[in-house]
Amino acid sequence: MTINYTDRLARTRAKMQELGIELVYLSPSSNLEWLTGIPRERPGYTNVMYPGGWLMGAFVGLDKGPILAVPRMFAEFDLGTLPGMDVRVLPDQGDPVALAREVLGEFKLQGQKVAVEDRAWSVATLNLQALLPDAEFTTAWQVFQPLRMVKDETEIALMRRAGELVDLAMTEVLKKLRVGVSELEILTEIDYQLLRLGARATSFPTSLYIINPKRDSAMVHDKGTSTHPIEPGIAVPFDFGAVYEGYCSDFGRTVWIGEPPAEYLRTHELVMQAQAAGAAAMKAGQVTAAQVDAAARRIIAEAGYGSGFRHRLGHGIGMDVHEPPFLTHFDHTVLQNGMTFTDEPSIVLDDRWMVRVEDVFVVRAGGGEALSHYSRELMVVS
Amino acid sequence: MTINYTDRLARTRAKMQELGIELVYLSPSSNLEWLTGIPRERPGYTNVMYPGGWLMGAFVGLDKGPILAVPRMFAEFDLGTLPGMDVRVLPDQGDPVALAREVLGEFKLQGQKVAVEDRAWSVATLNLQALLPDAEFTTAWQVFQPLRMVKDETEIALMRRAGELVDLAMTEVLKKLRVGVSELEILTEIDYQLLRLGARATSFPTSLYIINPKRDSAMVHDKGTSTHPIEPGIAVPFDFGAVYEGYCSDFGRTVWIGEPPAEYLRTHELVMQAQAAGAAAMKAGQVTAAQVDAAARRIIAEAGYGSGFRHRLGHGIGMDVHEPPFLTHFDHTVLQNGMTFTDEPSIVLDDRWMVRVEDVFVVRAGGGEALSHYSRELMVVS
Repeated sequence: MTINYTDRLARTRAKMQELGIELVYLSPSSNLEWLTGIPRERPGYTNVMYPGGWLMGAFVGLDKGPILAVPRMFAEFDLGTLPGMDVRVLPDQGDPVALAREVLGEFKLQGQKVAVEDRAWSVATLNLQALLPDAEFTTAWQVFQPLRMVKDETEIALMRRAGELVDLAMTEVLKKLRVGVSELEILTEIDYQLLRLGARATSFPTSLYIINPKRDSAMVHDKGTSTHPIEPGIAVPFDFGAVYEGYCSDFGRTVWIGEPPAEYLRTHELVMQAQAAGAAAMKAGQVTAAQVDAAARRIIAEAGYGSGFRHRLGHGIGMDVHEPPFLTHFDHTVLQNGMTFTDEPSIVLDDRWMVRVEDVFVVRAGGGEALSHYSRELMVVS
Repeated sequence: MTINYTDRLARTRAKMQELGIELVYLSPSSNLEWLTGIPRERPGYTNVMYPGGWLMGAFVGLDKGPILAVPRMFAEFDLGTLPGMDVRVLPDQGDPVALAREVLGEFKLQGQKVAVEDRAWSVATLNLQALLPDAEFTTAWQVFQPLRMVKDETEIALMRRAGELVDLAMTEVLKKLRVGVSELEILTEIDYQLLRLGARATSFPTSLYIINPKRDSAMVHDKGTSTHPIEPGIAVPFDFGAVYEGYCSDFGRTVWIGEPPAEYLRTHELVMQAQAAGAAAMKAGQVTAAQVDAAARRIIAEAGYGSGFRHRLGHGIGMDVHEPPFLTHFDHTVLQNGMTFTDEPSIVLDDRWMVRVEDVFVVRAGGGEALSHYSRELMVVS
C-alpha cells in the first residue's frame, strides 16, 4: 500500500492552475500530510511557542517546491528526518520574516492568488500578506477538498485498518466495563488500546456520552472524563476513532448497565434500523447526501422520535474525521464510488439517555460497505 | 480564589485603547479563557467541521461585547451554558458571513485597528478582512501578553495546585514503572493519574524522552508512545504537566532503569545544580531572563557538557505552557515578582541518554519559589 505523492503533487498543481492559484502555504495539517506525508503533530491543550514559530509550513508553487520553512526547535524536537525534502531551518535568533521573504522570492510570483491552509494561524496569514501586499489571499481547502473527497483503494485499505482497530479496541474495552469503574478509566482504556493496537492517535477526543439523571442536568457537560463510577440504570454510548497511517475511523456502540428498559431496547432497535437504511441507500451515482440522510431519518421520525435525532446522519471522513460532503438535508452532492461516510443516527431523550450506533461506510454501486464490523446490537453489562 | 473577569475586561480595554485597537476577535483560546472564563476545547488530532464552523469566537469592543458567535453544533455539543454571555448561535443552514456582518455592525467601528487571536484560523481572518475591507488587521497577543505576563496571587495559587497534581501523579506513576511494562503504559498512566487527580487536561502531550541505543537512532522519534518494553540500561526522562482551572504546570524527573553508570550520576548531579542555580538567580527586579539562563548554563558548560544542553533554560508559563518571556540568551526582559518560569536544564548525550529535571518557579525578591516539590534526585528502578 504505497501512496503516490508524485501523483498527488501533480493533481494539486493541476487544480491550482484551474483555480488561478500560483502558491499554496500549508502549515502542519491534513493537507500537508496528504501532499507530502509529513505527519501532523500530537495536539496540545495549551500553546507551545518556539522562536519564530509562526513560520512553520510548506510553500508549494506551480513548478517549484514544496519548500518547508520551520523554526530550529520544531525541526530538532518534532520533525524527524525528511529525506528529499527541501527544508529551511530558522535559527533561534533568526528573522522569520526575512526567511519567508527569501523563500517567497524563489517562486517568482506573477500576481495570481495565494492560498493558505484554512486553519493556519492568523499571525502567519497576516505576516504573509504583509510580504505579498499585491497578492489576493484565499484558502487552500478549495484545492484539496475535490482531490481528497473520493478515496482510492489504497486509502480505503488504510481506513479499513483504522476500522479494524476500533473493532479490536471495543473487544478489549468491554472486558473492563463493569459497575464501579469510573468513566475516566474506560475512556483511558479506549485510548490506550487504540494506541497499543497501532493507532498513531485518536481521530478526535474519545467520548462517552453518559447522561446520569441522578447527577447531570445535560449531556453536554460530560464526555466521559468524570471520575464518577459507572452505575446500574445508565447507558454508556461510546464514540471513538483511530488514526492509522493518517486515515481515520469513527465508531459508536452503546452499552446498557443493568436491565435495559423496554423503551431503550425499542429506540436502540430503531437506531440500528435507521443506520442500516442509511447504509443501504449509499449507492454510487444514484443518490444525494441529503437523500441518504432522509432514508435513515424517516425511520426514526415515523416512530415518533424525530426530535431526539439532533444532528446530521453523518459526515465525510478520510484524513480528517469530518470532511465534506455531509449527510445532511442541505447537501445535494451526488455520492460517488469511493466516498467514505459515517452513518451515525442517534436518539437523545433529554435527561434520560442517549442511543447511538456508528460505523464508516464506503459508497459502492450496491450500497455502503462497512469498514468496522463489531456487533451493532445493544450490549448489556451488569 | 475568584478570578475578577470584570477587571480583566477593563484592563484589556485600556490596553486596546493604548494600542489603537478598537475590536478584538478571539476564537477559543487561552486569551478567550483568560478574558471570559470560557474554557478551551479538548484538542483533536484531526479536524472536526461544523456548518459555518469558521465563525466561532468572541468579538470585544472598547465599550461593547463580548459577543460570542458560534455554530449551532458547537453551541449544543461543546459550549455548555454561559450565564450572562451574549451568545449568537448560527443555525446549521445559516450564513456565517451574514451573522458576522450583523455582529460587526453593532460595534460602530471608527477605522482603528482590529486584532484577531494569533492562532485563529486563516479562513476566519480572511473572512473578517473581507467584511472590514478598510480596517488594519493585527494580532491579539500584543494586547494580552503584557496583561498575562505577571501572575497575581490568585493565579499563582492555581498554578501551585497544578504543581501539586504533577507531584501526586509522579508518586503514583513510579509505582508502575518496572522492567517489562511498555513506554505507552507509563505514558497512559501519567495522563490517567493527572485527570483522576483533577486536571482538566495535560498542559501538552505527555512525553518520555527515551533513547534506547539498542533500538533508536535519535531521540526525536520516540516520545514514549512505543509499545516496546522498558528494559535495563536506559534512562526514562519524564516531561508532563497538568492544567488546573486553566493554569499549567510543567514537570520533569528522570529515572534510571538498572544500575546507573558513573557518568549518568555525574550529569544528573550537574543538571540538578544548574537548575538550583537558575532558581536562585530568579530575583525580582535584579536580573534579566538571559542572565538566569546564563547562571544555569555556566555550570553545565564548565563541566564540559555545554553542547548537550540544546535548548533554552526555560519559558514563561501560565494559561499556556509556553509564554513570553523566555529564559534564553537573547531575551533581556527584567524579571518581576509574580512572573512564572520553567527551569529545565538538560543534557543529551546523543545515542546514549538524556538527563533532565524541571519545575515551575515564581519569581520572588529572594529568588525563585518552586511550585512543584517532588524529590529532584535521580530515581533508580530495577
